[in-house]
Amino acid sequence: MGLINVHSYLGGRWLPADEGARPIASAVTGEPLAMAGQATLDTAGMIAHARNKGGPGLRAMSFHDRARMLKALALELSNHKDELYALSHTTGATTADAKIDVDGGIATLMVYASKGRRELPDGHILVEGDLEMLSRGGSFVGQHVATPLRGVAVHINAFNFPVWGMLEKLAPALLAGMPAIVKPATATCHVTEQCVRRMIGSGLLPEGAVQLVSGGLGDLLDRLDYQDVVGFTGSAQTALMLRSSRHLLENSVRFVAEQDSLNASVLGPDVTQDSPEFEILVKEVVREMTAKAGQKCTAIRRILVPEALMGPVGDAIAAKLGTIRIGDPALETTRMGALASAAQKSDVREKATRIAAECRRLTGDPDRYEVDGADPERGAFVAPMLFACDDPDAGDAVHAVEAFGPVATLMPYRDLAHAGRLMNRGKGSLVASLITHDPAVARALILDAAASHGRIYVNNRDSAREATGHGSPLPHMIHGGPGRAGGGEELGGIRGVMHYMQLTAVQGSPDIISAITGTWIKGAAQPKSPAHPFTRTFDELAIGETIEAGPRTVTLEDIEHFAHFTGDTFYAHMDEEAAKANPFFPGRVAHGYLLLSFAAGLFVEPSPGPVLANTGLDGLKFMKPVSPGDAISVRLTVKRKTRRTDEYGEVRWHVAVLNQDGEDVAEYELHTMNAYRA
Amino acid sequence: MGLINVHSYLGGRWLPADEGARPIASAVTGEPLAMAGQATLDTAGMIAHARNKGGPGLRAMSFHDRARMLKALALELSNHKDELYALSHTTGATTADAKIDVDGGIATLMVYASKGRRELPDGHILVEGDLEMLSRGGSFVGQHVATPLRGVAVHINAFNFPVWGMLEKLAPALLAGMPAIVKPATATCHVTEQCVRRMIGSGLLPEGAVQLVSGGLGDLLDRLDYQDVVGFTGSAQTALMLRSSRHLLENSVRFVAEQDSLNASVLGPDVTQDSPEFEILVKEVVREMTAKAGQKCTAIRRILVPEALMGPVGDAIAAKLGTIRIGDPALETTRMGALASAAQKSDVREKATRIAAECRRLTGDPDRYEVDGADPERGAFVAPMLFACDDPDAGDAVHAVEAFGPVATLMPYRDLAHAGRLMNRGKGSLVASLITHDPAVARALILDAAASHGRIYVNNRDSAREATGHGSPLPHMIHGGPGRAGGGEELGGIRGVMHYMQLTAVQGSPDIISAITGTWIKGAAQPKSPAHPFTRTFDELAIGETIEAGPRTVTLEDIEHFAHFTGDTFYAHMDEEAAKANPFFPGRVAHGYLLLSFAAGLFVEPSPGPVLANTGLDGLKFMKPVSPGDAISVRLTVKRKTRRTDEYGEVRWHVAVLNQDGEDVAEYELHTMNAYRA
Repeated sequence: MGLINVHSYLGGRWLPADEGARPIASAVTGEPLAMAGQATLDTAGMIAHARNKGGPGLRAMSFHDRARMLKALALELSNHKDELYALSHTTGATTADAKIDVDGGIATLMVYASKGRRELPDGHILVEGDLEMLSRGGSFVGQHVATPLRGVAVHINAFNFPVWGMLEKLAPALLAGMPAIVKPATATCHVTEQCVRRMIGSGLLPEGAVQLVSGGLGDLLDRLDYQDVVGFTGSAQTALMLRSSRHLLENSVRFVAEQDSLNASVLGPDVTQDSPEFEILVKEVVREMTAKAGQKCTAIRRILVPEALMGPVGDAIAAKLGTIRIGDPALETTRMGALASAAQKSDVREKATRIAAECRRLTGDPDRYEVDGADPERGAFVAPMLFACDDPDAGDAVHAVEAFGPVATLMPYRDLAHAGRLMNRGKGSLVASLITHDPAVARALILDAAASHGRIYVNNRDSAREATGHGSPLPHMIHGGPGRAGGGEELGGIRGVMHYMQLTAVQGSPDIISAITGTWIKGAAQPKSPAHPFTRTFDELAIGETIEAGPRTVTLEDIEHFAHFTGDTFYAHMDEEAAKANPFFPGRVAHGYLLLSFAAGLFVEPSPGPVLANTGLDGLKFMKPVSPGDAISVRLTVKRKTRRTDEYGEVRWHVAVLNQDGEDVAEYELHTMNAYRA
Repeated sequence: MGLINVHSYLGGRWLPADEGARPIASAVTGEPLAMAGQATLDTAGMIAHARNKGGPGLRAMSFHDRARMLKALALELSNHKDELYALSHTTGATTADAKIDVDGGIATLMVYASKGRRELPDGHILVEGDLEMLSRGGSFVGQHVATPLRGVAVHINAFNFPVWGMLEKLAPALLAGMPAIVKPATATCHVTEQCVRRMIGSGLLPEGAVQLVSGGLGDLLDRLDYQDVVGFTGSAQTALMLRSSRHLLENSVRFVAEQDSLNASVLGPDVTQDSPEFEILVKEVVREMTAKAGQKCTAIRRILVPEALMGPVGDAIAAKLGTIRIGDPALETTRMGALASAAQKSDVREKATRIAAECRRLTGDPDRYEVDGADPERGAFVAPMLFACDDPDAGDAVHAVEAFGPVATLMPYRDLAHAGRLMNRGKGSLVASLITHDPAVARALILDAAASHGRIYVNNRDSAREATGHGSPLPHMIHGGPGRAGGGEELGGIRGVMHYMQLTAVQGSPDIISAITGTWIKGAAQPKSPAHPFTRTFDELAIGETIEAGPRTVTLEDIEHFAHFTGDTFYAHMDEEAAKANPFFPGRVAHGYLLLSFAAGLFVEPSPGPVLANTGLDGLKFMKPVSPGDAISVRLTVKRKTRRTDEYGEVRWHVAVLNQDGEDVAEYELHTMNAYRA
């Protein structure tokens, strides 16, 4: 077999590696496998293509359009998993490792597709946070909105997850409406290239939305401006070099980094050798050390246990590590494959030596281990290594040196506060875990340590069956951490989308804000509906259109009748003396739910029509009590519309219930499903 | 009068300026006024004092405690406004200017106090965003929380607003629970010092919560780590110097900058010389040019008008500028005072010359203007200068040179897209304004330009009376902007507080998450209440305690009775055939509000007790229809408690309505006010 020529995809064309290419070796055999890179790169052209084609193409789509596109991409890639698994073996990944990468990446697309549909508007402007009343009279209000940045996202990814690493950055960028240039780490870029081929080949992406650089980036970063974003995953050293770039700093180019991390796992002080949590910790540690041969930025590097459990935990982990078969990742019996490259292997060995200088070695001889079906010398294989550091306060390397492989250090703590201090010695991490069954322990540790960690994973007997693992970033939760971890943040659902958008505070009259957000707000125009709105289809209904109904007098008989019918004989409705003694009521008052029910009675149009169902209600506030003899009326206004299926969409209505003096007695947002067609 | 000795406040002591001090001159007379600075500064001691005293002191308080402290500080400062106004005159500020600074700062404290009470929990951990379901069975869930950073906030402020500039950064930091070291610009630090004296003297602040450096910062920034924050306001040049610091970059120290900005104001294409909006633009421009002598980072620097209105707008602004009296800011007749220093004056004159090279001068001779009650040569006075740039596409300096004084440039645009392009030529601004009465114009411009601006202010005849002005950052809305403006963000309500906190993704079982957040969540324990919860006081109620009530069968008679009583005869309740044809219903079903009402009837305890009122409801979802003959029961659980007054607090209850098969038919969050004492 000849060398794989890893192409780049620029300006709508696939470009082969040329005389500027670098070789890529198989992680398993050490033999040349592929070549990637171009001698010259038209970086100005790439950026222009993204800005002039990709950006406008994506921004022409609504958030929901883009969410649907992500779902379609996920389904497309699902049909080509096997080829990606197979290619991944050449990078040292077992099939289980490749599934973390490929299936994890596809799942990330799916979650963003789903969150995009559920949590973002079916339009082009994202309304962020609540309306702010900036004036007494209500003629001047404020609303934060987010709109896509007009530049390009440059994604510089790490070698360990060539598929997930791309998709976890791409999903939020594309959902935001921002085109991307993907630059995978060269060592595994042939896997990324194959994934990009499937995405481009699907025809689902607008022209220019995704470009791929296999090889060096050239002067691309020096051409970016303040509407561009750099998302970087890799070493702290490279991150520092990039973020120190005068050009990026001068131009306030957004730079999000996810870098080194000395992740800790803490066994709670409540745990004994007999607790189910003991075994849970051992499993988590062994999984994190061996999955992807420990080449995970979230892997456990430090294991903190109560002093008395140092021996038992060390023995249990060492015993389990002893059963792990190392070998050719393509073999079904292999539990741990190779590191990604010879360079990684020598780096891990060097770092392990630095850690070993402060520790006892519990298991893992760097020079003697068996490898199934491959040559240990030529392939990038290493043995899992567990160290023990008996005086972690004195330890230095154990809190600072990240061996990016199957290497971890066990250390004792005296009490929970000590555990917190040791955790924080890592100076900022992506994730820390705590294995405890005591909620008070969890709360105390969060208060002490959360500020130094981007994620804290708590596991115990109640959650063990469904828990997703210490080392798994989930698209729902932020991934990133302070300090050594880079100070960045990715994923976290829609939070991750915001990195590709600009938040803008918009101020103006209610009519102006309403037009911008596509949502009726208090003070904006309320033109009379041309017909009862329950007779108008989803598409016919206009934002702001309003009907008024009523009045209806609420009598004491109504209140008593309602009380006996429903069983709600609360004294505020039934006992004049007791009600008067209450700080909120002038005397007996109508039930809140009586008002809701009467309001519905006033505005509902009973005949079959486009309104299919009342699905819920939000933000109900009772603002003023209604006394017997008061007359209520109701004002029903179309607030917002969101298409949901091919047949119907959701309408949110503002409902104001008023008394005979025109004062608001209650208000709420009513939700209905409305048919598009009559 | 001798020189004012401006002290620093470090480690709990006031230190006088010493032989290391620099002189401060009066802006009005040019005479020496004060001295500030120390030859050596114990920066390690300051940081330790903040971390070891200030941080723990603030973190021991709840968010609500800190909010109450901000309110008390605001009231304290309100009693000392006049002395701050008087001192401000020496900086060139008129009383009106000083009110923007002093009253604006106090208002910022008040808004943060109020938002802290309303929008933050009465505890130590901020729950951010929604609960994330991370497992099918619900035994593993996720929640983002925020906790205060454990370091110190270093606030480096600009000279123009010595009080507001401090308080707008201090309010969110203190509310977050983070101590601060304030470093005002030396030129006006005597005003800041007086304000700090009043705050420290009040005894309201925990020891170490606020320290003040009047003069140079020494090596303070080189001692910061990843738990610290630098908040900077000032020139892009200084910001670049600071943010390029290898120490800050290596340690991922958070750096928030608010710097230069070429703010634009656009007169909408819908406006004619007769529209009310014409006069609104002229007023906004003149106010922004002359308030604080144009030394506002948010002032209007570029005025974009339809081509046909170049002449009329230029004439109107020039005429109004002609009426502005320049003079000693202590005089009541003075409309515009001096710049803050001779250095500013020469800087503004130099920048104006660069702008003038591309423009026609409409008004403002830099060398000839009258000054009331002061010497134009010795004081830092300048005349307001209006330029016209007839070819703004060719213009360069007009989009890039910020003269930080009463200087603005008028320019024509052809159509709205052209206006958007010109706005964005500023490469990122703090604020842009748009004067239009056409909501479609506002929406189109937001889509085109929002990504380049931190705030967009729209004003017209509807909002003019209450609008707060193009140049006023409000504590509710973010203040900051992309690109040239620094890429930072301050204020914005609770968004500003988040800069001083770490967001952490927490994962675990419902019981664990519930203990951490102090909020019952689905899947967490629901122990039976020891007595009916309506008989238990606010303090007695425990998070998670639950009662169940029912069942009650819902009959067809109930449905018909409810329909006729309320008037809600919607066909889904009344007409079997029509209901069946609806995609949501199996046939006639009970009204949603009938279920709510029956549920209340089942769980309400009618006698007087600690429950004072039902104040509202949130998140009501109807999940499954209830048919005649179904029997419903209800489960009422204490979800969250928040103290509100001295007498009572708010209890949020989770209510689940179930059918005879134990399926959820509805759920919602019920709000009541509950007395602390029986």
